[in-house]
Amino acid sequence: MPSESEIISMIRRRARKTDNVVIGIGDDAAVVRASSGKDLIACCDLMVEGVHFRREWAPAKLIGRKALAVTLSDVAAMGARPMFAMISVALPRDCSSEFVGELFEGIFELANSCGVGIIGGDTSSSPDSLFIDTTVLGECERGRAVTRSGAQIGDAIYVTGELGASALGLKLFEQGMRLGDSEPNAGGETAEKMSREALMKQLAPVPRLEIGRALGERGLASAMIDVSDGLSTDLWHILDESGVGAVIHAGAIPVALCAESFAARAPAIDALHLALHGGEEYELLFTCRPDCKSQLDELSRELSFKISRIGEIVIRNGLQVERNGALEQIRPAGYEHEI
Amino acid sequence: MPSESEIISMIRRRARKTDNVVIGIGDDAAVVRASSGKDLIACCDLMVEGVHFRREWAPAKLIGRKALAVTLSDVAAMGARPMFAMISVALPRDCSSEFVGELFEGIFELANSCGVGIIGGDTSSSPDSLFIDTTVLGECERGRAVTRSGAQIGDAIYVTGELGASALGLKLFEQGMRLGDSEPNAGGETAEKMSREALMKQLAPVPRLEIGRALGERGLASAMIDVSDGLSTDLWHILDESGVGAVIHAGAIPVALCAESFAARAPAIDALHLALHGGEEYELLFTCRPDCKSQLDELSRELSFKISRIGEIVIRNGLQVERNGALEQIRPAGYEHEI
Repeated sequence: MPSESEIISMIRRRARKTDNVVIGIGDDAAVVRASSGKDLIACCDLMVEGVHFRREWAPAKLIGRKALAVTLSDVAAMGARPMFAMISVALPRDCSSEFVGELFEGIFELANSCGVGIIGGDTSSSPDSLFIDTTVLGECERGRAVTRSGAQIGDAIYVTGELGASALGLKLFEQGMRLGDSEPNAGGETAEKMSREALMKQLAPVPRLEIGRALGERGLASAMIDVSDGLSTDLWHILDESGVGAVIHAGAIPVALCAESFAARAPAIDALHLALHGGEEYELLFTCRPDCKSQLDELSRELSFKISRIGEIVIRNGLQVERNGALEQIRPAGYEHEI
Repeated sequence: MPSESEIISMIRRRARKTDNVVIGIGDDAAVVRASSGKDLIACCDLMVEGVHFRREWAPAKLIGRKALAVTLSDVAAMGARPMFAMISVALPRDCSSEFVGELFEGIFELANSCGVGIIGGDTSSSPDSLFIDTTVLGECERGRAVTRSGAQIGDAIYVTGELGASALGLKLFEQGMRLGDSEPNAGGETAEKMSREALMKQLAPVPRLEIGRALGERGLASAMIDVSDGLSTDLWHILDESGVGAVIHAGAIPVALCAESFAARAPAIDALHLALHGGEEYELLFTCRPDCKSQLDELSRELSFKISRIGEIVIRNGLQVERNGALEQIRPAGYEHEI
């Protein structure tokens, strides 16, 4: 394990100082200049080895990348723009300098690609597991942050991208599959591509920053959350905070192709179940007034990104799934971070 | 261990929403309103069980309190005012609900006492040790943050309070002493009071918020740092960042009475060594133009708090300690957080 001062020098060399960073890494605290008249967004996410990730499943770079990605996703879910990040890591003694370098490489690559400046953090040794806590600061127009509590009866429910791939990826990891494995006898090239897609969605989720920010800035989303615990659980959070109910249509849920493809070959895999309850998708789930449809279609075209309408907000009556015309009441059954 | 939702409800009930908190705990991120025209200060500090603290040494309340105190101390060292905090904890399974409640009680008590709003955080289970990462956001007048790099030749060097008690406390803990122990045969009531003082300085350091902020706002400190690694190491950081040297006077260093008292009875304890190199004091070490003496005296009287002049900034020539007229070159030998 490299020393704290070696890690700090490495990070300090690597960190790019952006215009609004007055004092970056290396002092007691960072000093930044927030834009006047904007609201400041702040959140953090903790990733713990053995709970949220395993070192044997992913290269260090992807572990670092994901630690930042999940926190950026929270900022996206507020309809805001991330600006700065701080990274606290507790490193077990068996982490080599190379491992630590790669871990931060993953963090810096993602941060740079979305204009986020790394302004601070802390490092420590850890007696056992690797811990990464990432804090992100962002901003949005005053009063424009999208909460979980703004959904109203009559609103339509939308989700970005596709669901189910990350939960499938987790299942495949648990079954012993690893990145780079090929399985020529079990479906050939397509199957290999599909499993890689599932594993990568699990290891390298992409925070939906552009679309989240646009939904916030254009005032399109009445409530929003990112799908970290699973569609059913995260929608439940919106219903609970907004004091409303929802009906979602099973046939309208955008199930990831890889989940469909695996389900077709393995009867034990239920693609809809993965899409409905699987966590760590980091897609955005939001509600929208029904008259915003054309603006959403335009946004989807503009960003070349899929947005699917999956249901409606109704009076407070829990969460119901409509499947072939029949309504079924469901309880949230999202992903629990347990070992 | 309580569930994540139980912990969040408990924290949410306990958190007081201050005026400038638009959205507090319970959404994807917090939304706060920073004052316009000010600079934003951000920092975090990680406390790891077995590295920074031991559960058997301290009640949960003091562990929580210290986790926040050390980060507030960083904001004080910038000459700024802390405003908001976020707390990420990874809890081992053997942490009872009572333990977690007490841990947060310690955090909230300190936060409330200094007007800091708890606006967010994250919780997770931990396979082994307890981890607490605290993030603090603060503010100061634009351009007024006090860094480590502003010390100039001719500046006087000052330190708040007294040094050596925390390092003594650590030594006593390592020797098996605990809070509440009495040692009637080893010096009576005074010895008991002195050991309690040392143990409490180690367990419940007080961040020097008022004095730090005043030094910043009145433009009195040219460079500042908090004594977390030890006077010698932390002064070294200022010298290194400012490109200067220093002479400090052994006789002027404010050694804590408890360290003096123990040293008088135990030849193995060198009180000056503790004060010079012992970490986790969380006093403020700062430099000041020589003509600010009367303003500093006034501030000291105003806050009824001791500030001692311990040396001078000289040309770049490392760190020298003057003892009975003789100069000795010293290398930093601060506290290293190792198990």
